[in-house]
Amino acid sequence: MNGQREIFEAGGVLVRDGRIESVGFVDEASVPENAEIIDAGGKVVMPGLINTHVHLSQQLGRGLGDDVDLLTWLHERTWPYERSLTAEDNHVSSLACCLEMIRSGVTCFAEPGGQHVDTMGRAVEQAGIRGILARSTMDCGEGIPEHARESADDCIARQVEHMDRWHGAANGRIRVWLGLRTIFNNSDELILKSRELADARGVGMHMHVAEVKEEIDFAKADRGLPTVEHLGRIGALGPNLLAVHTVWITPKEMDLFRLHDVKVSHCPGAAMKVLGFAPVPEMLQRGICVSIGTDGAPCNNRMDMFDEMYLTAMIHKGRTLDPTAVPAQSVLEMGTVNGARATLWEDGIGSLEPGKAADLIMVDMHSHPGSMPVHDAVANLVYAMRSSCVESVMCDGNWVMRDRKVLTMDEEAVLNEAQQRADAVRKRAGIELPQRFPIRRR
Amino acid sequence: MNGQREIFEAGGVLVRDGRIESVGFVDEASVPENAEIIDAGGKVVMPGLINTHVHLSQQLGRGLGDDVDLLTWLHERTWPYERSLTAEDNHVSSLACCLEMIRSGVTCFAEPGGQHVDTMGRAVEQAGIRGILARSTMDCGEGIPEHARESADDCIARQVEHMDRWHGAANGRIRVWLGLRTIFNNSDELILKSRELADARGVGMHMHVAEVKEEIDFAKADRGLPTVEHLGRIGALGPNLLAVHTVWITPKEMDLFRLHDVKVSHCPGAAMKVLGFAPVPEMLQRGICVSIGTDGAPCNNRMDMFDEMYLTAMIHKGRTLDPTAVPAQSVLEMGTVNGARATLWEDGIGSLEPGKAADLIMVDMHSHPGSMPVHDAVANLVYAMRSSCVESVMCDGNWVMRDRKVLTMDEEAVLNEAQQRADAVRKRAGIELPQRFPIRRR
Repeated sequence: MNGQREIFEAGGVLVRDGRIESVGFVDEASVPENAEIIDAGGKVVMPGLINTHVHLSQQLGRGLGDDVDLLTWLHERTWPYERSLTAEDNHVSSLACCLEMIRSGVTCFAEPGGQHVDTMGRAVEQAGIRGILARSTMDCGEGIPEHARESADDCIARQVEHMDRWHGAANGRIRVWLGLRTIFNNSDELILKSRELADARGVGMHMHVAEVKEEIDFAKADRGLPTVEHLGRIGALGPNLLAVHTVWITPKEMDLFRLHDVKVSHCPGAAMKVLGFAPVPEMLQRGICVSIGTDGAPCNNRMDMFDEMYLTAMIHKGRTLDPTAVPAQSVLEMGTVNGARATLWEDGIGSLEPGKAADLIMVDMHSHPGSMPVHDAVANLVYAMRSSCVESVMCDGNWVMRDRKVLTMDEEAVLNEAQQRADAVRKRAGIELPQRFPIRRR
Repeated sequence: MNGQREIFEAGGVLVRDGRIESVGFVDEASVPENAEIIDAGGKVVMPGLINTHVHLSQQLGRGLGDDVDLLTWLHERTWPYERSLTAEDNHVSSLACCLEMIRSGVTCFAEPGGQHVDTMGRAVEQAGIRGILARSTMDCGEGIPEHARESADDCIARQVEHMDRWHGAANGRIRVWLGLRTIFNNSDELILKSRELADARGVGMHMHVAEVKEEIDFAKADRGLPTVEHLGRIGALGPNLLAVHTVWITPKEMDLFRLHDVKVSHCPGAAMKVLGFAPVPEMLQRGICVSIGTDGAPCNNRMDMFDEMYLTAMIHKGRTLDPTAVPAQSVLEMGTVNGARATLWEDGIGSLEPGKAADLIMVDMHSHPGSMPVHDAVANLVYAMRSSCVESVMCDGNWVMRDRKVLTMDEEAVLNEAQQRADAVRKRAGIELPQRFPIRRR
């Protein structure tokens, strides 16, 4: 898929120095003699997917928050887990999360903010894909654990440090944005200072918005208006705001999003599991840029953009009883070009076109019974194919995975360490999981 | 998981002559000297999954019915496809469908009825898993294509022929049930004659029930009551009725299901894509036996029970806004023991216990970043794991897949033939698919 949304049958992509030089029916005379030529016969070459909402630091917590109510999830599982996660745990958590993303064809992601930005940065440097990092900030609200509470100025100061250290690192693969957790825990002062800094630095803000019903009730009681209307009134809506979830957004608030070109990250898995169903067809109809995210391992639990594209295409048909809602071609755009717009990176990634970075994946649909036969390749990519069909992943002109082997890290070693550290974190956090069935040990 | 729903850590399963002899901490003295010993260290050994609703004959039609309204789906895509599918096409369609099911850990399925039962039977014989076959019947209603219309007596007679030929074939792996399409196309006469025959032969009836909203309006207008109430009044509800979808069932009708011990096949993918959301927590709370099905490739499009278990666990949480709804352990039961009850086969399959058939799968969760770390194995099986982690599949004591290699057929040859035949069927049917993006050819 190129910038004009065209599909080339038996086409090619010429990559030089990490950039796409030409796409389509490549002129053989323009191919340098020493170029490596890769036969992708029978396979699909397409832009790398962009995951616009994923918690790297939560990867070791997969399975800690299933089938419990929201308060148990937060107080007895997530906060104890976060408190017990060391910077080095977070490094391994981030590597493991990048592994899963690479295997599902992701070449760029946006992180809403963990505590340990430095070890996330190190992991992304090594993993070889693009990451937009942020730090989670909480400066107000009830029930915040002591270790996580800071003043608005402290929040801003810490983020400036991270920006200075990491923005533009790894040959430009890493960018740093401002992280805002939710309106429950972010004062207007912090929101506005974040907006000011984001504008000054030319970066974005990543915030959970209209996530749960209780948030709307809280915003009305605490700030006088529902979340989005309130953000509009204080001047926090703009094209560099990436609003995540937006399950409980109203039609009036969608109009505000369109007016201010606010970007949306739709996370259908997390929404199905906990939040409710976001009005995605309604947002797309208004022309709002809706992208797709996986959210974190304890609330989805698949960090897999092909599964999220599948859910995005399916869930809104069932909800609206309209089987034409959110068709496959829209979903593919949401996972690629819309992801690039949402991450303010559309000048560099999101489609295969000359001048953009060589972020691409090769997919083999023809060798798996789950995606055969192919009548409609775009439909199969979205409705039938699983990420196990992703064969190779290139980011910034470098192979990150080739023939299903991840080249930037020792997968087995990372997974082993992830398991060990996950067990240790759970133990330190004192998290007890109920037995779902009686377990008998010798 | 055994019949008492226990999990054995470092346990074993002793299989002899196709049956399970013991489960749990196997007494080494009881293991014959010439027994093959398989080390499943680090892996999960569990019952094979039971897919209680899958259309084998639709596998070649995957991708023909995406993103179109119901009438287009039926009149311009599905009926032309069905009319053009030959018996031999159906054989390959069935093999390809079995391939996908085997790779996702299915050892038994129930088919609601295609036209060519003989070639389905041949495919199941070869594939090595269990299949409950049926023939699709339509004896009334508007818009039925000429080739598919028959009298009630003809419908019954044809099914008796199939039963005599196939019921109990392949060492008992194949069974034949009565197929009823929907109340749109089945007269009360056919329904009652099917019930009578099913009772006499000790088999079940497989019927789409309360599938779309229009069906309820139709049943009220045509028979005077909504589908399930009507079936109850004429005496068609019973423990051998497998009712599929039940999206539009009312609380009163659920009570009827409980009263008559009617079994349900829940197909969350198809429901999400076209039908609406079935009241699964409500049915489970009433004690109704709810199992899981994938439906057919043009309406899901993943014939993958691990994906369906994931959807089953997720969708009802979002719908009811209760994250404790339909927990992982219930979903695992729905995919195994409930499947066995729904297919009237609980004396033989569905759990690992002495005397039952050796239908089991081995799953390697530890080598894929998408299911690591493991804090809660049951939660990971349902929420995080993909079918690509299914390593080996045994049915009736025979390996059907070992170390990810399917042993009962030549996978590549089947997929190639599936593609060729699918292209030919589409051409014969005159189905034109719109281009989703402009396609450029040299």
